[in-house]
Amino acid sequence: MKITLAQLNYHIGNFELNKTLICDAIKMAKEEKADLIIFSELCISGYPPLDLLDRQDFITNCQDAVRDISKECKGITAIVGSPTLNRDAGGKKLFNSALVLSEGEIVFSVNKALLPTYDIFDEYRYFEPGKDFRIFTLGGLRLALTICEDLWDEQSFDNEFEKQRIYTISPMDQLAKHKPDLIINISASPFSYSKIEMKADIFRKKARKHGIPLVTVNQTGANTELIFDGASKIINRKGDLIAQLPFFEESVETFSVSDIMEGNTVRNPEKKSSVELIHKALITGIRDYFRKTGLSGCILGLSGGLDSALVLCLAAEALGNKHVRALLMPSRYSSEHSVTDAVSLAKNIDVSYDIINIERPFTAFEKDLKPFFKGMKRDVTEENIQARIRAVYLMAFSNKFGCILLNTSNKSEAAVGYGTLYGDMAGGLSVIGDVYKTDAYKLAYYINRERENIPLNILNKPPSAELRPDQLDSDSLPDYKILDSILYQYIEQQKPPEKISGEGIDRQTVEKVIGMINCNEYKRYQAPPVLRISSKSFGDGRRMPLVAKY
Amino acid sequence: MKITLAQLNYHIGNFELNKTLICDAIKMAKEEKADLIIFSELCISGYPPLDLLDRQDFITNCQDAVRDISKECKGITAIVGSPTLNRDAGGKKLFNSALVLSEGEIVFSVNKALLPTYDIFDEYRYFEPGKDFRIFTLGGLRLALTICEDLWDEQSFDNEFEKQRIYTISPMDQLAKHKPDLIINISASPFSYSKIEMKADIFRKKARKHGIPLVTVNQTGANTELIFDGASKIINRKGDLIAQLPFFEESVETFSVSDIMEGNTVRNPEKKSSVELIHKALITGIRDYFRKTGLSGCILGLSGGLDSALVLCLAAEALGNKHVRALLMPSRYSSEHSVTDAVSLAKNIDVSYDIINIERPFTAFEKDLKPFFKGMKRDVTEENIQARIRAVYLMAFSNKFGCILLNTSNKSEAAVGYGTLYGDMAGGLSVIGDVYKTDAYKLAYYINRERENIPLNILNKPPSAELRPDQLDSDSLPDYKILDSILYQYIEQQKPPEKISGEGIDRQTVEKVIGMINCNEYKRYQAPPVLRISSKSFGDGRRMPLVAKY
Repeated sequence: MKITLAQLNYHIGNFELNKTLICDAIKMAKEEKADLIIFSELCISGYPPLDLLDRQDFITNCQDAVRDISKECKGITAIVGSPTLNRDAGGKKLFNSALVLSEGEIVFSVNKALLPTYDIFDEYRYFEPGKDFRIFTLGGLRLALTICEDLWDEQSFDNEFEKQRIYTISPMDQLAKHKPDLIINISASPFSYSKIEMKADIFRKKARKHGIPLVTVNQTGANTELIFDGASKIINRKGDLIAQLPFFEESVETFSVSDIMEGNTVRNPEKKSSVELIHKALITGIRDYFRKTGLSGCILGLSGGLDSALVLCLAAEALGNKHVRALLMPSRYSSEHSVTDAVSLAKNIDVSYDIINIERPFTAFEKDLKPFFKGMKRDVTEENIQARIRAVYLMAFSNKFGCILLNTSNKSEAAVGYGTLYGDMAGGLSVIGDVYKTDAYKLAYYINRERENIPLNILNKPPSAELRPDQLDSDSLPDYKILDSILYQYIEQQKPPEKISGEGIDRQTVEKVIGMINCNEYKRYQAPPVLRISSKSFGDGRRMPLVAKY
Repeated sequence: MKITLAQLNYHIGNFELNKTLICDAIKMAKEEKADLIIFSELCISGYPPLDLLDRQDFITNCQDAVRDISKECKGITAIVGSPTLNRDAGGKKLFNSALVLSEGEIVFSVNKALLPTYDIFDEYRYFEPGKDFRIFTLGGLRLALTICEDLWDEQSFDNEFEKQRIYTISPMDQLAKHKPDLIINISASPFSYSKIEMKADIFRKKARKHGIPLVTVNQTGANTELIFDGASKIINRKGDLIAQLPFFEESVETFSVSDIMEGNTVRNPEKKSSVELIHKALITGIRDYFRKTGLSGCILGLSGGLDSALVLCLAAEALGNKHVRALLMPSRYSSEHSVTDAVSLAKNIDVSYDIINIERPFTAFEKDLKPFFKGMKRDVTEENIQARIRAVYLMAFSNKFGCILLNTSNKSEAAVGYGTLYGDMAGGLSVIGDVYKTDAYKLAYYINRERENIPLNILNKPPSAELRPDQLDSDSLPDYKILDSILYQYIEQQKPPEKISGEGIDRQTVEKVIGMINCNEYKRYQAPPVLRISSKSFGDGRRMPLVAKY
């Protein structure tokens, strides 16, 4: 008996594409003489479909797609994920289901019991939890079919205030009573660099606890902010990882059940460092944002600093250098190296660039505003005007040439509000908005691992916004190492201020930084979507009341 | 025996303020010789606290505040709403609780069983549902204590695809077994103009079904987008509304239990038209946004059109005309009346205004961009540049004078993307972003009910963005009456396109409009928070995947 794992990249609401992906994989599995092919959670609709689930026409499309796919399941059984209607009188109108398709029929179904409703997950918004725990038998093999979180009844969170058991039941404990031979878990589990090990451990513990081998199928690709790492796994009954599909790539692979039952290593899993995974995640995130919105070109402002250099390299790798365009917009406060460094970078990676000095509109605004600002000192107002002028240019190119503006803010800046709303905070997608400044350096060195793509001068000079004479980031912010440590403890770990500690961290700095985070919630509310690589990124996974007293 | 209803305006995370509000009301109730005083849901923390609930320090502050308030409960019993810790091994870490305080102690508590997790509500994100349904007895009176949604096990939604029963239990059916004398419901129920009648009906039906009188206490005031209408109610056992506290105002009122039990009308409820309620809601929303963020002044761009005129009047009423400042920014395409109408308006309501022609920076941008745009036609790019120049001026005033930019986009524009990101879509708060254009006219006439605040010429001329010669909204959009009907059916009612119908609505227009809605999700993602007056406003209550295929 053979099982095929189909780790694919679905597009939300693109039923034709998803159907084609699924049917092509079924064809491949048949060629491999597989008996069962397993797809990932909500593969029919794409994940996460969000409020499209509230639309009757969307659910009808899901039903139609399942019917069409079931007709392809001749001589093979397929497990697909789809929203299905809850026909009971009470409860949410939908289930998050795993459907077993065979010979044109839905022969078995399971509804997800544990519905993640935290961070970026909102599943109880749409779905009624499943309450039946039954086994499906295929060719004598007793299968315990679970959906993602169903195996996550025990987990750890970066926030220590969280509980380890946020549910009151354990679906696998229920299923274990029926003595299954194999656990199957279909998931749509997004990437977070701090959770890679934890994710594998959760599955390993379940296999070991019940003494049953486990097959997981995750999706890959990205949908806006969320990037799915793939890495579908086979784990033996002792809890050893015996095979793993690649990270961030589509893959359809067939395995023999006897190998899984025997439990010897079938394929050595790739080992990847954190920075490699983050790099691959961001490339995937950029590529799929453009591919799935049907757009090909991007533009960004190149300042001569680290962040825009990093985004330029990532974009060129994701989209191809011919699809990336850079705009250099020096001002009267720009240092000479900011232009020369940016130009060398653009040449290094062969990206076309243009230079526009912002002096002309800056002078125009200054002249017009002079009578109103009479007797008042220059302050952040004039700095913001420069950042906003740059956004006007970038958006003009974006509008005229139909390319998307990439935002280049990093997470440290976004956290403390060190950026201009409608200025450098503009863009269709924030590429490194979940990357702390200290990690941005690591990524840059990784990008330079084989050759100097990013000029070393960019990596070595002190960070500056260059919005006033001789300005440095360190005038307004603590050293980035200290800042990032405070930010991580406050944002990811959600520690109370008095518990935030570490080398060089004092109470006053902690309070200053937290004050900056809190009073800039309003800016982040209007920020572009951020490619998520951590366990707590800005955006939909972090919902703060704007008018609260902090 | 006497009961006091305390309908107050809490501030999220402002424990000192909330405690003072609560303790002052307890003092008043004591003076009225009340035996019981009832506050609203989560009054301790303010509602909705969102992800502040994930912070240990926030929960500690709630516990401290409850303890302090309980000490004030000498000779009187108080019911307050607060998050409390779930000390069971499994389940979410918090409950949404109603606590009964007496003589320095928590003498009884109930945990909310039905946790709204739809639209703007995310309660299962934080709370474990309560499972115990017990009665509390006070002075011989058996009280069934419920929290908001606990009485909403049956409800109707504007989206016909929704079920009437989205829960599998009915807390009141459980409580009814204990034969209570009185139902108490503490809530934090935000305003929606289409739900005013429905809300009252839900309570009336419950009272009638069980033959038990019902007392509800809602909060009032606004927290960012959400505006709470107050209107706390007393309903007799036959289901008649016998008393109602005012809409959108704080109120502490004491009633005798014998009056409630007898069930005669104690106070005739105010009757208010839909436009009156919306007007009051928006005023409340503006006022509290400023009050709760500690800011006093606002600025807005006055175009001579309806929307900015409306927002100016609302802001002047909410904040006082001295705290409102208008900027008129005509361009080479502005008609003469756009300036004269805006000036008359500013004079009518005595708001200070300034005029800056945008020609100087517009020419500067044109000059700088000319070499890059050679041979290309003028298009939406040049229109957007003008809108963005205006945002630069407005934000410069905002930065320099510390006032908040009010956004003036209406819901019809926001829906079809008829607006410029980082241009007229900028602002700290969107005042009429949940008001369709046709309703904006109704509001404007309401504002003119006693005198011509908004010059009639503004109400009578055809809407135009004036971003190119002789431009009219009707060049790009269907008639607003038709547009708004399509929008309402698609957004609020979530009808499938083929079911959208009405006078003058044809299939082609429906498809064009829906196409515009879908392809502008990315713009709305970056829009400011919108004061919510409908059952489905843009913002956190409507979560659409940006890269989906629609």
